[in-house]
Amino acid sequence: MANAPSIDHYRHFTENWLGHRKLTRRIVEAVPEGDLFSFSVGGMRTPAELAHEILESARTVVTGVATGDFPDYRMESPYKDRAALLTAMDEEFAALEKGLRSVTEAQLATEFSTFGGSYTGTGMEQLQYAFDNEIHHRGQLYVYLRALGVEPVPFWDR
Amino acid sequence: MANAPSIDHYRHFTENWLGHRKLTRRIVEAVPEGDLFSFSVGGMRTPAELAHEILESARTVVTGVATGDFPDYRMESPYKDRAALLTAMDEEFAALEKGLRSVTEAQLATEFSTFGGSYTGTGMEQLQYAFDNEIHHRGQLYVYLRALGVEPVPFWDR
Repeated sequence: MANAPSIDHYRHFTENWLGHRKLTRRIVEAVPEGDLFSFSVGGMRTPAELAHEILESARTVVTGVATGDFPDYRMESPYKDRAALLTAMDEEFAALEKGLRSVTEAQLATEFSTFGGSYTGTGMEQLQYAFDNEIHHRGQLYVYLRALGVEPVPFWDR
Repeated sequence: MANAPSIDHYRHFTENWLGHRKLTRRIVEAVPEGDLFSFSVGGMRTPAELAHEILESARTVVTGVATGDFPDYRMESPYKDRAALLTAMDEEFAALEKGLRSVTEAQLATEFSTFGGSYTGTGMEQLQYAFDNEIHHRGQLYVYLRALGVEPVPFWDR
């Protein structure tokens, strides 16, 4: 099957993502509480909104690939305070781990259409997109932390 | 071989990286010339220095995995002006494409020690690290562009 990874490599992809997700948790946690829902650079989204995008992209894509049923993407963040966001991060970590580990070789090779039909790709490609998206937005949170005078955990520390 | 991707999947990884690299070029190109070597947020590196890190991490790792001989990492950026940096980006794109396409399944599964012995992993893991690193730092350049009032090319446009 074109583009289908070996299941051994897929396991490596999964472990790499889970390591990144642990780092994402630490980066979000490092944002000062008073800035989490208000800080921005250059008119961009707040740290909490960027965290929501990371969680929501992964949740919808991983659930969709793992079950064939893609949940609606919630544009608006449902998290109203720091505790709710961090609790959601723990819950989504568990869901990500469970979801990624349940995906089969056949699902990795199945074509799915996502984002309202604007993106068609195999299960693996969909997962790759959500993974890349997490690193991208967490990289932005690194700049937010630096702008707030907070030294972030190193990128390699996962 | 544990963690070794199928060669079909590795080809997908390669194409995904090359697509990201094209986006990186457009993001660097979008930085106003007067800011490329001086702008910073929160005391971080300049856009040109971040671009150098992206190029250099990929260059050393891809060359190393493809040939078994890891070149020294040049800490200091050799690029003194915008034209030199953009020319290097074109040259490094060609080198990345050639290097990634020459990597064999055996090299992907070979263990290498990099970063002065601080990181040991298979060829695939080394490549994955340099790929992740590119998305991370380019995400930071997105914030720089926004802070400079420049609307970046969308993340999905590769």
